[in-house]
Formats: sequence, structure tokens, C-alpha cells
Amino acid sequence: MDSVPVLTLKRLPQYLEVLHDLQKSGLTIVSATKIAEITGVHMTQVRKDIAYTGAIGVPKVGHNIDDLKRAIEHFLNWNDATTCFLVGAGHLGKALLGYQELQEKGLKIIAAFDKNDNLINTFINNIPILPMSKFENLSSRLKVRIGIITVPKDSAQEIADMMIANGIIAIWNFTPHSITVPECIIVENIDMSSSLAVLSRRVAEKMSEETTI
Amino acid sequence: MDSVPVLTLKRLPQYLEVLHDLQKSGLTIVSATKIAEITGVHMTQVRKDIAYTGAIGVPKVGHNIDDLKRAIEHFLNWNDATTCFLVGAGHLGKALLGYQELQEKGLKIIAAFDKNDNLINTFINNIPILPMSKFENLSSRLKVRIGIITVPKDSAQEIADMMIANGIIAIWNFTPHSITVPECIIVENIDMSSSLAVLSRRVAEKMSEETTI
Repeated sequence: MDSVPVLTLKRLPQYLEVLHDLQKSGLTIVSATKIAEITGVHMTQVRKDIAYTGAIGVPKVGHNIDDLKRAIEHFLNWNDATTCFLVGAGHLGKALLGYQELQEKGLKIIAAFDKNDNLINTFINNIPILPMSKFENLSSRLKVRIGIITVPKDSAQEIADMMIANGIIAIWNFTPHSITVPECIIVENIDMSSSLAVLSRRVAEKMSEETTI
Repeated sequence: MDSVPVLTLKRLPQYLEVLHDLQKSGLTIVSATKIAEITGVHMTQVRKDIAYTGAIGVPKVGHNIDDLKRAIEHFLNWNDATTCFLVGAGHLGKALLGYQELQEKGLKIIAAFDKNDNLINTFINNIPILPMSKFENLSSRLKVRIGIITVPKDSAQEIADMMIANGIIAIWNFTPHSITVPECIIVENIDMSSSLAVLSRRVAEKMSEETTI
């Protein structure tokens, strides 16, 4: 499999949303031009992104929406649910355990781990919360390769190290701490701090404009 | 206030984390080179990013860590908490209501709104959950300018429109739906779908490598 530009990967879910909306409004065919119009991505880029997925449209007509959705989902590996473990069943962890959409997008959390005794052996959305000590045995038995980290930021590195030592090859990091991993490990960060930084500063800029005018 | 490149804004919180860690390990002075080393950002870029904040270091010595942290936080407007409203007190909304770190980063959620009667007038982390009908009156009375959207994706646009009609100028969108807003409105998306797309595809690429070898 070829390595695909990260920006293409990030745009494809946007296209899926657009396709979903268009389908709901009754359409069955869509052109790259239309997707470009709605998303604000340049048409040439939309075409390139779609080409990666292998979807083939009809010249001057466009793509069958159903086929295009399927091609994107297949390309993103969202068809067959990949199992994963989550560590840290606090507020954010619980939110992810209850988040149905993850499974629609091919990620199935099969167990959560926490060091809080009060949570152990409770269930959220039918997913068990287990003691940290069970991680090693279960991950090797179930061959789980993806780990989600939702612990407090000061424990992020330690949990990442533990995951990697137990065969995890891809980490979805929801803490603001950037973790250090060997080159062969895949890390994706959900970086709320960066997003909030942009938001806060833009609001401050806007407020200062309003005051100066 | 000058408009600052979005990538600079996104890197500054990373630097803050690094400064926090260095301080915990007992350091009081740091050089741009050191920050560059830890974050993997090029040294010239680190210098430029820091220059935006107005922090002034001592040539050949570096920055006082405390001063640099303060300069970045001030620059990001993280010192004085900006009030905001959240709409959608489901799993994800609740996670954000319980997320202490937001307030440390200058964002104080003062009320949440939901249409679920069972949630109305309950509190999470001392923040009240109110009926949607109260949004209009409260936002104008309290002059709230930032709104967080954590509703199901199909309601995202409708809630964004409602917020803007009631004076919200900046939206933090946690749904995978990209919302359409007038140009003068600031939108920041926390895009879990895009992040998951990158993760899923990279894992698939890696697995296929392993099988081929």
C-alpha cells in the first residue's frame, strides 16, 4: 500500500460528510466540482484526492454517491472494525467509550483500562473497564494493535511506553502532552490545546479590532 | 493586534508543554535550540514563533522559563478566562464540562444547553445545564461571544446558526460536520474524523507491509 499525503487523508472524511448530506437531500450523482464548491477545496485537489481511493467516475457526469462513499471508506480502512484498547476512563475516556461514531468509522474499543478501583469491572456502553495489570495479557492474547490514551497529561508518556512494550503499533493521543515514540510507531494527536490557541488568539484579535473601530 | 500564522498559534501550546516539563525537571533557563531539539521544530522557526509573543531572551543564554511561559500565555489570551457557552450535554459535552484544563487555558464554560429534559437544571462540575430556550436571553445579558458545539452532527449547522443569531462570534466545533458561517465568524474544528482517517490508513499501510515482508 502506498503512503498517502496526510492532507488527503484529512480531507476524505470531509468529503464523506458532504456525500452523506447530498444523499440525504435526494441526490445520487455528484461531480468533483460540486464537492469542491461545498468544501472550499480546489477542484484539482478534490480530483487528486478521489483518485487515490481508486473511485472512477463517469466523465462529464460525476460519481455515483454510494460508490464513492464506499471507495473512500474502504480506502480509509473504515469497513472492517479494527479493535483497540483505551487507557484512562475519566471524563474524556468515558466520552469516547460512549461515542458510537467511532465504530462506524472502523474503530472498536473492546476494553478500557484504569487505575481507579471504583471504575474497575464497571461497563460503559457494554465495554468493560479493567485494571491496568490486565493490559499485557489481553493485548497479546487479542493481538490489539491500536491504543487510545485519555489519561492525565503527566502520565501520557508512561502509558505510551507501556502500550508499545505490549505490541501496540498505533497510538491515538488525546492528551496535550506530545509523546516520544520509536520511529516505527504511528501517533495521531487530538490536539485541543492547539485548536484552543487559535480560537483564543483570533477572538482576542477580533475584540481588539472592535474596540479600535 | 496583528493576525498571526495559524501554525505559529498551533505550535505555541507545544512549547508551553515543553517549558512546563523542563521546569518540573528543575531548569529555569531554556534556549530556542533546546526547544527545537525537543519539539523537532526547526530552530529558526522556534525563534520566529517566540518573537511573535514579544518575549525577549538573553543572547547566548536563553529565556527565563517563567517569563517565556507568561509571554506565551498572555499572547494566546489564556490569562483572563473568556466565558463561553456549550450546546449539547451528551457524552462529549460532559467530558468538556469536566475538563479542568480548559479553564487553565482561558476558557470558562459558564452554562451548557441541551434539549433533553432529564438533564435540564442538573449541574456538572458546578456548571448548570439549561433548556435551549434560555440561550438567547442569557447570551445577550452575559455578552458571551464563544460557543462550543457538541451536539450530534446533524444538528451542528442549526445550532451554529442559532449561536450566530445570538451574538456568538467564535465557534469551537466538536462535530465532524463542517459548518458554514459568515466570513466574520471564527470557527475552529476539533476534527476527530480526520485524525482517525490518518490513523486508520497508516495502520492499514503498516499491516500490509508486515504481511508482504
